[in-house]
Amino acid sequence: MLPRGRPRALGAAALLLLLLLLGFLLFDGRLRRAAALDGDPGAGPGDHNRSDCGPPPPRPSKCELLHVAIVCAGHNSSRDVITLVKSMLFYRKNPLHLHLVTDAVARNILEMLFHTWMVPAVRVSFYNADELKSQVSWIPNKHYSGLYGLMKLVLPSALPAELAHVIVLDTDVTFASDISELWALFAHFSDTQAIGLVENQSDWYLGNLWKNHRPWPALGRGFNTGVILLRLDRLRQAGWEQMWRLTARRELLTLPATSLADQDIFNAVIKEHPGLVQPLPCVWNVQLSDHTLAERCYSAASDLKVIHWNSPKKLQVKNKHVEFFRNFYLTFLEYDGNLLRRELFGCPSQPPPGAEQLQQALAQLDEEDPCFEFRQQQLTVHRVHVTFLPHEPPPPRPHDVTLVAQLSMDRLQMLEALCRHWPGPMSLALYLTDAEAQQFLRFIEASPVLAARQDVAYHVVYREGPLYPVNQLRNVALAQALTPYVFLSDIDFLPAYSLYDYLRASIEQLGLGSQRKAALVVPAFETLHYRFSFPHSKVELLALLDVGALYTFRYHEWPRGHAPTDYARWREAQAPYRVQWAADYEPYVVVPRDCPRYDPRFVGFGWNKVAHIVELDAQEYELLVLPEAFTIHLPHAPSLDISRFRSSPTYRDCLQALKDEFHQDLSRHHGAAALKYLPALQQPQSPARDG
Amino acid sequence: MLPRGRPRALGAAALLLLLLLLGFLLFDGRLRRAAALDGDPGAGPGDHNRSDCGPPPPRPSKCELLHVAIVCAGHNSSRDVITLVKSMLFYRKNPLHLHLVTDAVARNILEMLFHTWMVPAVRVSFYNADELKSQVSWIPNKHYSGLYGLMKLVLPSALPAELAHVIVLDTDVTFASDISELWALFAHFSDTQAIGLVENQSDWYLGNLWKNHRPWPALGRGFNTGVILLRLDRLRQAGWEQMWRLTARRELLTLPATSLADQDIFNAVIKEHPGLVQPLPCVWNVQLSDHTLAERCYSAASDLKVIHWNSPKKLQVKNKHVEFFRNFYLTFLEYDGNLLRRELFGCPSQPPPGAEQLQQALAQLDEEDPCFEFRQQQLTVHRVHVTFLPHEPPPPRPHDVTLVAQLSMDRLQMLEALCRHWPGPMSLALYLTDAEAQQFLRFIEASPVLAARQDVAYHVVYREGPLYPVNQLRNVALAQALTPYVFLSDIDFLPAYSLYDYLRASIEQLGLGSQRKAALVVPAFETLHYRFSFPHSKVELLALLDVGALYTFRYHEWPRGHAPTDYARWREAQAPYRVQWAADYEPYVVVPRDCPRYDPRFVGFGWNKVAHIVELDAQEYELLVLPEAFTIHLPHAPSLDISRFRSSPTYRDCLQALKDEFHQDLSRHHGAAALKYLPALQQPQSPARDG
Repeated sequence: MLPRGRPRALGAAALLLLLLLLGFLLFDGRLRRAAALDGDPGAGPGDHNRSDCGPPPPRPSKCELLHVAIVCAGHNSSRDVITLVKSMLFYRKNPLHLHLVTDAVARNILEMLFHTWMVPAVRVSFYNADELKSQVSWIPNKHYSGLYGLMKLVLPSALPAELAHVIVLDTDVTFASDISELWALFAHFSDTQAIGLVENQSDWYLGNLWKNHRPWPALGRGFNTGVILLRLDRLRQAGWEQMWRLTARRELLTLPATSLADQDIFNAVIKEHPGLVQPLPCVWNVQLSDHTLAERCYSAASDLKVIHWNSPKKLQVKNKHVEFFRNFYLTFLEYDGNLLRRELFGCPSQPPPGAEQLQQALAQLDEEDPCFEFRQQQLTVHRVHVTFLPHEPPPPRPHDVTLVAQLSMDRLQMLEALCRHWPGPMSLALYLTDAEAQQFLRFIEASPVLAARQDVAYHVVYREGPLYPVNQLRNVALAQALTPYVFLSDIDFLPAYSLYDYLRASIEQLGLGSQRKAALVVPAFETLHYRFSFPHSKVELLALLDVGALYTFRYHEWPRGHAPTDYARWREAQAPYRVQWAADYEPYVVVPRDCPRYDPRFVGFGWNKVAHIVELDAQEYELLVLPEAFTIHLPHAPSLDISRFRSSPTYRDCLQALKDEFHQDLSRHHGAAALKYLPALQQPQSPARDG
Repeated sequence: MLPRGRPRALGAAALLLLLLLLGFLLFDGRLRRAAALDGDPGAGPGDHNRSDCGPPPPRPSKCELLHVAIVCAGHNSSRDVITLVKSMLFYRKNPLHLHLVTDAVARNILEMLFHTWMVPAVRVSFYNADELKSQVSWIPNKHYSGLYGLMKLVLPSALPAELAHVIVLDTDVTFASDISELWALFAHFSDTQAIGLVENQSDWYLGNLWKNHRPWPALGRGFNTGVILLRLDRLRQAGWEQMWRLTARRELLTLPATSLADQDIFNAVIKEHPGLVQPLPCVWNVQLSDHTLAERCYSAASDLKVIHWNSPKKLQVKNKHVEFFRNFYLTFLEYDGNLLRRELFGCPSQPPPGAEQLQQALAQLDEEDPCFEFRQQQLTVHRVHVTFLPHEPPPPRPHDVTLVAQLSMDRLQMLEALCRHWPGPMSLALYLTDAEAQQFLRFIEASPVLAARQDVAYHVVYREGPLYPVNQLRNVALAQALTPYVFLSDIDFLPAYSLYDYLRASIEQLGLGSQRKAALVVPAFETLHYRFSFPHSKVELLALLDVGALYTFRYHEWPRGHAPTDYARWREAQAPYRVQWAADYEPYVVVPRDCPRYDPRFVGFGWNKVAHIVELDAQEYELLVLPEAFTIHLPHAPSLDISRFRSSPTYRDCLQALKDEFHQDLSRHHGAAALKYLPALQQPQSPARDG
């Protein structure tokens, strides 16, 4: 290996010599600059750059568009970005254009989120991080942010050529003020400055934190790159791409890797070209790292602008004022994002896609209509955060089945049992407030059973409106299922332990989807007791049924819902058997993933599954009951949503109106064939039975 | 009556003449002023006073104390004030002193709230509104704010003589910015100006809203008094007390009453003394009244500062931008007030009462202690909002009983049934987040049964920490019970329909409290079925028991909890009978209101009631079982809180530690008598049985 290595080493030595020479030429200026930064030996972060006390810079004009770039990859960073964006939107008064450099996971999450969030005067562009990887992957890096941390270096070339100014943010910052004040600091740049940064609020770059601590070169304490004002135009002109690569290559001759990712390289470049940097007031990047000196900044300032959780411990960082900062962070973590859908008065802007039609439809609703709440709920576009937690997509398997269900906070306690009963993939939609989403997160983290399951995808649909949008939730979960088949279940049911395996075998045997257009029926039972020993086989189940410890589902209140399953025949059946659709039939079924969606007009607690089975039958799905499949409903008190509407006298009328409209649509799609369902749609039914 | 009336009328005429003369002298200046206010005919609110575009006034110094006065009366205004205060605290950066002029109801609520809120650098002083009533009650007033609306007029004399500057706010305003910016506008006052006001953003005072509309006199569109900067010192010097009374008396000679309360009188005085007023930028009082012209203000401004819901319809006001403003309001309505317990860095201030001891106790906790969460939860001071909804205290009756219980959101659906079973007073503690408190409000409003009950007091205890503080909640509800006796129940129980009457009769017959120190035991049963026909008598109950439709409470899981009640004896009993305490006994009892409190160390779900019965027995309360009394537990799924901790392996150990400490305290108080309870405290018990 030596003969090949030697010429490379020689070249490197020559380069080093050249750089040393260059460095010498710049040395004088740099020294003066460094002295100015460090001030007297007692001065620390926040002391030297308290320019927030001076006259405020001119604010951007009322409707000026501000550009923000963020690099984001993976499930956890996507959650962080949303909190950052919430804080930014809370205080902002200008239109914003977000430039998001994302991997495939983050893009999938954030694209859906912003699409459904519909915030006025916010535009979002995505850039493929994976395409940029090769530009930074040669840099050895020890920082927890990984490869993505380095991508800020390539923004001048990755962002559109016409973009001249951009604010670059780490995902772990929180705004405590209007971003236009930060944007205004661009006006402080001299004609040659191109990078605005806050000093690093620790002694890291002084190299004295521990023995043999050898940081990358920096001016004085160096700068933190969690918040950057970038003049992209000037960087491009100054040959930034070559500049940082040259510096990085040179330093990597003697340093094994970057410790703080892009920040090490930014600092090394700035040490070499101090004229590039415009120091920003410390309040624009209050750094709560492990060895922070930020207190010198925030106790003097009257106003904190941006808080930066730049410790790997994040909110668990030890800091005597951490409670204060945590409260700020929690404010936006738990903030109802729906409240940020507010327009900017006096700034005409392109409405988000679909927003205008939605506004028109909402404006046409009659507030005096007794079913107004139903109509409004149907039109509501819920914010959707798919794969809220880390998730491994199941490997492609031809007969795999995902359990699909939806729930709200009051059913979280079902999840552990469900995981024990269903070892396969699940796609669950959760109807939560922003604050509840955080409780949910803690709930999962506290449960070893749930934390261990990477094949359960949780999709948060944010609450809005008084009625439970049951079918919209089912559709979200269904759309996110990644296996070829889905088991459409409800959260209060526990499937037989063997069901997952049995379903996959049945799908294969029956040629479901490919040879046969069918829905496989999983017979449903119920127990009325909390404490109950779950049957391990059909034999055990039948025994429990015989002693009255189990019943067929809704046997007492609504036998019509499952009667067509023909429990008597199931008792004896050895092979799948076909059953006919009948009015009010609402079995739990297994179907191919591309099955018809649920009808989202059914909000609240009536007719939501029944309509789906009607649609399956209208589309000529065979209904095949599986002889060894079963699922059991556990008892629960009626939910708040159900209680609220059960007693409402207009409920029945509105539900009947929904059914009528459903049938009109059915006739439009299926013509005379839809006549078959007319009697079923016209008969009254008890409301709210099928929650 | 004429002879007595005539001299008064003559005097009034003379006064009028004098005032006309005075008015004439001031006329010229007033005219000029009015012209300046109105500007050109096309100019409207917001056009003339866009002084927000000028250079900002100097901000108050970093730790300057700002004074705010608010008049507040009754349950609903108290809720409003809290939302206002939350918005103010969210943006504030200065210490605040709140001067609250309150009736007895508001004082009771707000005193407890601020005491338990413990916000650093906030001082609160109360002033008795009832003592000020006589100073304004002579003014006929048609405004919905009633007498209290007029009280702003007497603030210069009611507030401390040394107080020179104060910001006066209506309860229906919301801050969207830092109040110190508003305070800074005092610096704009000329040497003689004493009242800072925003122009009224409607045509009301122009008198052209409808035929025969005769408003009080005002300069141009007049001013709105929802936000006032008052130079109290100057008003006192200028003889404000005489000044406004003189004007009001004179106008009331020709006008029947004030239509807009204090605002009419402020405007009439200002019309007479225009030199008193300093007009403020419109953004400091964006008025969303029914006929608002505020859009001219907010679409031009870059920044809204204070939003004023000054329509009697409040959030239901019709305004095309109301969604925007509502979102702002909801932000603070639902904001977690705990997050506002944040210190002001660099402003040393007197900590709130108890805060220092609390900080010390929390600092002494060991984070590595496996029971750390228990210890922390015990020390948590929860914000408490007593009588969250309008409440009529029960009339004093010597044997009256209040049902006392506690619940969280997942048990709201019990309330209607409870109201049907218990026609007497109730005191209920609800453990909620701020957002849930609003859901709760809507839930009550939507229920005719609940909305009709003025004798049910709801006390909101705000959530904080992972464990359910069951005994702290019980103590809040108990402390707020206003009858001489209390029935200590749990939310999942429905009492016999006759229980309320029967208990009052029993209390009287037995001489409970006066002759006899006793706890009356109400025997507890349970049903395992949702649908269940509640027995109307003991005979019916026994029949259900015999057929297995009912059981004695926890018959299957924990018979020890109620065994000492001696159900066999109860079956036959015709008269109350005495039973002896035994280990783990936890009956539901009726006791005098001054009974021992629950031990707040028991957080989560174990031993909370058992310890209370031990304490009753230790204090020598007789335990008397009532032969006709019963209460029945309804089934429910385990709550999230209970599920979370049932599975925790440290739960038992921590509970045992709590029990040991409880017994140490018991021994300290009762000496050797406490030995009796030692075996009971040392035996293991199944955790979390008694949620």
